[in-house]
Amino acid sequence: MKITTLLLAALLPLAAHGQTREAGPWWPNAEWGPMDQAGASNRITAEKILQALTVVQTGRVYEIGQVYERGMPLGGTRDYALRLVPAIEPTGSNRVLYNDEFLSAEVGQVGTQFDGLGHVGGEVRYADGTLNRVFYNGFTTAEMNAGTGLRQLGIEHIKPLITRGVLVDLPTYKGVQRLEGGYEVTLADVRGALQRQGIAESSIMPGDAVLFRYGWAQLWTTPAAYMGAALPGIGVEVARWLVERKVTVTGGDTSTNEVSPNPTRGLVIPVHQELMMKSGIFNIENLTFEELAADRAYEFLFVATPIRFKGATGSPLRPLAIR
Amino acid sequence: MKITTLLLAALLPLAAHGQTREAGPWWPNAEWGPMDQAGASNRITAEKILQALTVVQTGRVYEIGQVYERGMPLGGTRDYALRLVPAIEPTGSNRVLYNDEFLSAEVGQVGTQFDGLGHVGGEVRYADGTLNRVFYNGFTTAEMNAGTGLRQLGIEHIKPLITRGVLVDLPTYKGVQRLEGGYEVTLADVRGALQRQGIAESSIMPGDAVLFRYGWAQLWTTPAAYMGAALPGIGVEVARWLVERKVTVTGGDTSTNEVSPNPTRGLVIPVHQELMMKSGIFNIENLTFEELAADRAYEFLFVATPIRFKGATGSPLRPLAIR
Amino acid sequence: MKITTLLLAALLPLAAHGQTREAGPWWPNAEWGPMDQAGASNRITAEKILQALTVVQTGRVYEIGQVYERGMPLGGTRDYALRLVPAIEPTGSNRVLYNDEFLSAEVGQVGTQFDGLGHVGGEVRYADGTLNRVFYNGFTTAEMNAGTGLRQLGIEHIKPLITRGVLVDLPTYKGVQRLEGGYEVTLADVRGALQRQGIAESSIMPGDAVLFRYGWAQLWTTPAAYMGAALPGIGVEVARWLVERKVTVTGGDTSTNEVSPNPTRGLVIPVHQELMMKSGIFNIENLTFEELAADRAYEFLFVATPIRFKGATGSPLRPLAIR
Amino acid sequence: MKITTLLLAALLPLAAHGQTREAGPWWPNAEWGPMDQAGASNRITAEKILQALTVVQTGRVYEIGQVYERGMPLGGTRDYALRLVPAIEPTGSNRVLYNDEFLSAEVGQVGTQFDGLGHVGGEVRYADGTLNRVFYNGFTTAEMNAGTGLRQLGIEHIKPLITRGVLVDLPTYKGVQRLEGGYEVTLADVRGALQRQGIAESSIMPGDAVLFRYGWAQLWTTPAAYMGAALPGIGVEVARWLVERKVTVTGGDTSTNEVSPNPTRGLVIPVHQELMMKSGIFNIENLTFEELAADRAYEFLFVATPIRFKGATGSPLRPLAIR
Repeated sequence: MKITTLLLAALLPLAAHGQTREAGPWWPNAEWGPMDQAGASNRITAEKILQALTVVQTGRVYEIGQVYERGMPLGGTRDYALRLVPAIEPTGSNRVLYNDEFLSAEVGQVGTQFDGLGHVGGEVRYADGTLNRVFYNGFTTAEMNAGTGLRQLGIEHIKPLITRGVLVDLPTYKGVQRLEGGYEVTLADVRGALQRQGIAESSIMPGDAVLFRYGWAQLWTTPAAYMGAALPGIGVEVARWLVERKVTVTGGDTSTNEVSPNPTRGLVIPVHQELMMKSGIFNIENLTFEELAADRAYEFLFVATPIRFKGATGSPLRPLAIR
Repeated sequence: MKITTLLLAALLPLAAHGQTREAGPWWPNAEWGPMDQAGASNRITAEKILQALTVVQTGRVYEIGQVYERGMPLGGTRDYALRLVPAIEPTGSNRVLYNDEFLSAEVGQVGTQFDGLGHVGGEVRYADGTLNRVFYNGFTTAEMNAGTGLRQLGIEHIKPLITRGVLVDLPTYKGVQRLEGGYEVTLADVRGALQRQGIAESSIMPGDAVLFRYGWAQLWTTPAAYMGAALPGIGVEVARWLVERKVTVTGGDTSTNEVSPNPTRGLVIPVHQELMMKSGIFNIENLTFEELAADRAYEFLFVATPIRFKGATGSPLRPLAIR
Repeated sequence: MKITTLLLAALLPLAAHGQTREAGPWWPNAEWGPMDQAGASNRITAEKILQALTVVQTGRVYEIGQVYERGMPLGGTRDYALRLVPAIEPTGSNRVLYNDEFLSAEVGQVGTQFDGLGHVGGEVRYADGTLNRVFYNGFTTAEMNAGTGLRQLGIEHIKPLITRGVLVDLPTYKGVQRLEGGYEVTLADVRGALQRQGIAESSIMPGDAVLFRYGWAQLWTTPAAYMGAALPGIGVEVARWLVERKVTVTGGDTSTNEVSPNPTRGLVIPVHQELMMKSGIFNIENLTFEELAADRAYEFLFVATPIRFKGATGSPLRPLAIR
Repeated sequence: MKITTLLLAALLPLAAHGQTREAGPWWPNAEWGPMDQAGASNRITAEKILQALTVVQTGRVYEIGQVYERGMPLGGTRDYALRLVPAIEPTGSNRVLYNDEFLSAEVGQVGTQFDGLGHVGGEVRYADGTLNRVFYNGFTTAEMNAGTGLRQLGIEHIKPLITRGVLVDLPTYKGVQRLEGGYEVTLADVRGALQRQGIAESSIMPGDAVLFRYGWAQLWTTPAAYMGAALPGIGVEVARWLVERKVTVTGGDTSTNEVSPNPTRGLVIPVHQELMMKSGIFNIENLTFEELAADRAYEFLFVATPIRFKGATGSPLRPLAIR
């Protein structure tokens, strides 16, 4: 079957979707229109990229993602299995040998991971009283889900993230090695840290990447501690501030980039809902900022190019900070 | 087990390796020393990055990779299976829903793929008469291979590729829609195409990315034609020129980026051996340059960040060209 | 975590389930009680096994399943990828080498497959007017489904099938090579075939395996033909007769063991619903009876032992007929 | 491609193999000829099956395998990941729902596992002085191995195992709960246990299954203990006795069914080599005999039908003992 035929089939549900978008609670949040699937990556225009490139002064590259490997911390019941499919016997007069690898994993939701817009949603009561299972821009599970991947809101719709990045270094501001598990970072904390770093809050502009260092990456090599019962992180207060500042993406050096458990009993990853479901803002988890912090490198060119696995909820990532 | 313990175990074979490197035929080819595993990515220095950024004038981003999806062309016996692991029931007072995806695939060797240094090697007769199964820098299969991935030359050693990119647009130079299957691109072709594009050969500098458009991406949606028996591409002549120019990476819009079958009977993917095994130069396959060609965009900032799957032979990729 | 803890967690939803079973439409169909998950395998008692063993006269074993391999016919978007994880270097003073294999597949729903009770269900309107998504014995998708497998109705609950088997050889009765695609086998056909074979209908007893030869296995090595648009098979009429005869399992030499498309426009695999969802009777697909038919071996000891992959919807199988 | 074409390609190496078999050290061990790939399953003739069936007296079935599930003990770096591919929306006028499952695992070498003849071999010095990497019947890794599975000695060649089974209950004989880790079961132990059970050694006949209870299955739900550093089991002495008795298959309730570590320093799983590589006798691991022992059920019909995954080294299994 030609791929174009498959594409046509996938587009069919969208017509109906467009006709009913006005009723949903996301409008006018989905500022890019009722059919949009790219979310806040739309904010990264050519002009934004040109501005972001001017940040670079030395050309030094910082790796702010982790290496993917057996034994790394994994959330929930996710798995990661890589196998070598090796050279057997040489072929050709030039005696070629080759190796491949075979991977079986929740590939977009292990290690350093870029959460797409089909990853977290919720059951929401609409104005008409109906309960709907929806994700960003009101796409419903019935519209989205198929055995072989998402028919809507797949990661392939996200534009590459080449933008200005700002790191909020919380442990240094607080004068601690790392934040404590369960601590909710307040907006006052964020403002205090930015001030210490000499970055004006007003300089946080639409399309920026705002990343949070909790110091938790220090625990990466001890998975039980890293995935522990309580994690530091931002809460709904800071999430709403990120929405107001119109950032494109956030991220942190824990497995959720939000305080866990949430101080409000009963709430489960509400920051994910605020950012992704309601506002189309992306979240990157399991980052590491130890080198950036050591160099007091708080502003940089941020480079993140999610792999376009069609219909995936997220992507593995090799995010960079370039000064 | 702590990951550091695993790392120590993986390093042990290296000691022996270093002691015997002088005997190998790659020295002095491996100009970055007998323990090097990063190959030509070493050429991308901070200074090189600063230079490359100056190429950008408009901020426009071109996607030069393909989307990964069921039904795309696959080489040999490789497979690609993505499954949704979906939202079952909402949880929490905020009624969260979430989806994951599970992927089983030769993840570094399907679709747009970045070939690492553990992917292609050969059985080589050393000066002492012994036959050795080696890859880049003389690493042997016995040193490298393990069931759960490469112990040496894994993709995680490669530095991010942020560099100047040059596209060699061969069909436009030749005045054809696309090159014919089996046609070997000559050095004269490459020089002619560069001249037409107004790019001096001498401007190809160490660390650059030199990419070849054959026009073959036009066949991407018809896999049988795309993977056909005969492919256009460069041969050993142009490969050696790339080595002389000290590029870091090459790539093309076919599944091999080299002429296939090779005109010299018996040779199997010799360009891969010239570039990777002998010189540590990387190869990217299944690219697409139709938009760049339409815009006559032949020089750009090239961005490619191979995912660091430890011990993998290659990586999926979302390569970009930014003007 | 100890597995017993996991088991306790999995059992919790059952309490609620048991309390509300009287309302469902399956009762009293689920004759083994509201908590039953073994379905018609309950009919295979020790006494039944003793009787079945008496059928064996020669000890000859017939393989009635197919070999699982790359390139075999696959339904829908299912995949099957097996990779060798090979011997690398010998270990120990006895120089041991070993190979493993890694499989990624819809393992219970490819090739010769045993459909369990969590495989096919339906959305059913209950007497109270509610629409419910249910499988055998009224288990709901909310009760059953989890990302890592079924919490209820997993294949591990099925008892081994060691019973008397009867083959209904339809092409021989009809005097054709194989039945035509789209032909619905009638009860009259079944009765006629049994009569020709000298097997009294009244001899079909509770717990028996009744298998249908359509001759379709002749097409196994040409997947496109085998999985063709129209398949011969039994329909609802014969399915209800199987329910009346209280068989434990049925099976056939096509990918569905039911006529496809169903002659009643709009019906999708209704035989699966009649047998599995309503009556707890199992279905085995992609069998082969060419050798049995050649030997006119119509009655035998039937041996099928579904692999107990916890939470799976089906199982690969190596079914045998022993005369 | 038609499967028959693939088969032809796979058969080509065999011609060369057959011509040189006389030179190997296995001949005349491979008593079924130089091309044989079925090993000791050849001993299970129709006559043998008829005899075995006479053992059954009550029809009671004992499950002697474990359920496969997340969290079960796994050897080495093997993995087991099962995911539900669930019902999304009902289809058809009969509102059908269906679930599939996707499994990624070393499927033949996890949980209760049947070791085939391509699983364990060794590097062996032949009479001509050459070192050869060989498995059963002298098949070499070069002949056998391919990325997508074994080309020779795949599990699909093994005949179904329907035979007389004998359990050797060692803890009961020794008067202990279970044997200690590291204890090597002696031939005297085996003879003593058989005598206590009233089974004459001379009754162990060609084609029989002889299974060893160490009591280790009691630890199954505590994986760290179960996979512990030291395991009880038979050693080379008893392995050679099994070869003399010409059994077809053995098995035990540990992950290796042999003493580990072996008392002779440097030897790694030598029992596997004695049985499989040299004699074509199969080994089943991770069995459980607690119910058989409780009922003093020491002789039974043994039923084991390895799944025919083409080119696999082993198989998942649902072995049964029927009295």
